[in-house]
Amino acid sequence: MLGNFIYSNPTKLYFGDQAQKNLAEALKPFGKRVLLTYGGGSIKKNGIYDDVTAALKAAGKSVVELPGVMPNPTVEKLTEGVKAVRENGIDLILAVGGGSTIDYAKGVAVAAGYDGDAWEHFWVGQANPESGAKIIPVGAVLTMAGTGSEMNGGSVITNPAQKLKIGKVFGEEVMPKFAILNPRYTFSVPHRQMVAGIYDIMSHIMEQYFSGTDDNTSDYLSEGLMRSLITASRAAVLNPEDYQARSNIMWAATWALNTLIGKGKSQDWMVHMIGQAIGAYTDATHGMTLSGVSVAYYRHIMEAGMPKFARFARNVWDIPAEGKSERELAEAGIEALGAWIGQIGAATEISSLGVTEDMLEGIASATFIMPGSYKKLSRAEIVDILRESM
Amino acid sequence: MLGNFIYSNPTKLYFGDQAQKNLAEALKPFGKRVLLTYGGGSIKKNGIYDDVTAALKAAGKSVVELPGVMPNPTVEKLTEGVKAVRENGIDLILAVGGGSTIDYAKGVAVAAGYDGDAWEHFWVGQANPESGAKIIPVGAVLTMAGTGSEMNGGSVITNPAQKLKIGKVFGEEVMPKFAILNPRYTFSVPHRQMVAGIYDIMSHIMEQYFSGTDDNTSDYLSEGLMRSLITASRAAVLNPEDYQARSNIMWAATWALNTLIGKGKSQDWMVHMIGQAIGAYTDATHGMTLSGVSVAYYRHIMEAGMPKFARFARNVWDIPAEGKSERELAEAGIEALGAWIGQIGAATEISSLGVTEDMLEGIASATFIMPGSYKKLSRAEIVDILRESM
Repeated sequence: MLGNFIYSNPTKLYFGDQAQKNLAEALKPFGKRVLLTYGGGSIKKNGIYDDVTAALKAAGKSVVELPGVMPNPTVEKLTEGVKAVRENGIDLILAVGGGSTIDYAKGVAVAAGYDGDAWEHFWVGQANPESGAKIIPVGAVLTMAGTGSEMNGGSVITNPAQKLKIGKVFGEEVMPKFAILNPRYTFSVPHRQMVAGIYDIMSHIMEQYFSGTDDNTSDYLSEGLMRSLITASRAAVLNPEDYQARSNIMWAATWALNTLIGKGKSQDWMVHMIGQAIGAYTDATHGMTLSGVSVAYYRHIMEAGMPKFARFARNVWDIPAEGKSERELAEAGIEALGAWIGQIGAATEISSLGVTEDMLEGIASATFIMPGSYKKLSRAEIVDILRESM
Repeated sequence: MLGNFIYSNPTKLYFGDQAQKNLAEALKPFGKRVLLTYGGGSIKKNGIYDDVTAALKAAGKSVVELPGVMPNPTVEKLTEGVKAVRENGIDLILAVGGGSTIDYAKGVAVAAGYDGDAWEHFWVGQANPESGAKIIPVGAVLTMAGTGSEMNGGSVITNPAQKLKIGKVFGEEVMPKFAILNPRYTFSVPHRQMVAGIYDIMSHIMEQYFSGTDDNTSDYLSEGLMRSLITASRAAVLNPEDYQARSNIMWAATWALNTLIGKGKSQDWMVHMIGQAIGAYTDATHGMTLSGVSVAYYRHIMEAGMPKFARFARNVWDIPAEGKSERELAEAGIEALGAWIGQIGAATEISSLGVTEDMLEGIASATFIMPGSYKKLSRAEIVDILRESM
């Protein structure tokens, strides 16, 4: 049954192989001063920077550049962004990049509305968007499919000194006002990053799917998204320039985490919790930490959520139910997931990500345990899952 | 492959069995003067009118009532609404009802921005929303699931004198600003209307699904929505007060026609075109005209879109492919659709809707032929389809 909820996603999406041609138009409703933020400068090699600056010029904007957003944006970088917004009276933050860059832009957009220290006043939670502070509008040009940051209110900022990585999910007022989604912009993403992104998308869907025993439309939408992603991923790993595959992956990524498929139902998110703890210990690529623990994790909770795992086998992997017990079917579904992880080249063992035996207790202790799963794990069980994932 | 497109659906949805408790809050951002429009007054019997007026009072609004919106809103009614908006300086139109009432509110919202005759200046197309005229914001309280009007820009108005029924699809500026979706509000819909609504939803999905030969995420989402709707419909016809079923039907209806599942792909819409022509001749319930012709229509175009019909059988109806030719599989899918139409009690024969043999040529001539289908029909083929549907 669909529980009570509010759905509101005002982000305007321009999708397609010519999507950037809409950028000048998309910029129009906003003021003149734009903060252009991006990562390590790969956009200067693949032509995306040129497309974006041409659109900014055509729209008559004055631009302040803030490059160097790192994969896990830090509080120092956040403070730098807040300073740039205030000193330049910025009207719009335009993020060009993947999830980290867009997450970062949202963090700056919120923190810039408060006086004083960005981390203290914002991330720790004293201030919040509901306080009435002005939130700077954010626009996005997406260059990597995976996080879904282009159409949600999520933002993750790291405080290295405090060893904290804090994720916030803001409301519609912080979601990008628009996003340019050109699947060709993702062609130059390194193969391993593409694969990690694909698994991140799959994991976002499964985290919302594997919880609850009711019948609701959200789970059927999730099954559709997973089927599309699985088909497209197989084509994309063979030929990363398969536009059909990359466009479906990009679109699936957006809908995997823009709140739709989680509406009205309980959710899990334990794979992300374990994966993030691994990331804190190893600096391994996020998507790979998720693929590395998924099979062992799902085998551990399968018993408690058997009908859903059997359904996953039938409806996502097309495994015939005939002649199989529910348990056999459920197991076959998790096996199919594991086989697919191997086929697309995502990590199947966390030892390959730099996890060593002596880290397991620490990773388990660093794992935040969520309430929504079929089975609430003990620390000892997390250690077991990690060991089975080695 | 996903073609190029823009996606933007700013409607804020409040969903659930207490959704109306958000109405006062949803009304806040708008001005004081509200035009409250609704249909024949059933909302006064089932308590919905009381809920709505209490919220309007709590929000401090002054209200002008405009009841009597008919199932096919006429241009005379449109003119009455435009007059009411202008004379009362209306800030928001609040539509309480099903698709007709919300369609009507959108028509008034657009037409009120122009001087002179509503039909001439608006529906005929001389004026349009891009002209810069002010569009009055619309809010909706949905009482019937089916049309999807609560989250799209569609509006249909009839001009009886000119024998014209014109549908327009406006952009995001005309979409409702918010909609209250309480599945319990649909419990009192008469059984036959509920069934017609269910088939209308299914048809919306199939009209977008049965076109194109590419692989795209939109079709996978459609399959998910159809599976959810089929499951929920079987429960709802047995027990119309099954909240789980009615909530899934309501949510599926919204996503069946809010543009998402048609993004980046060609579409068909021939069943609607034939159904509307039948409606013009018989005044039969819209959803029933669609169910009445679907099986014969899909049998006629199956040959030209065989792989998609086989996929429909496998992925929507769970028909095993093993041991079947593609044609046998495709035929089995259409057969399953036909069986389901009978199970839920939707019309299986258009003769039951008042269509007589002497009308067939006229209905075929009145049918607008769309280009997007697997097969462009001739008038003679439409007559054949109608005859087979008798």
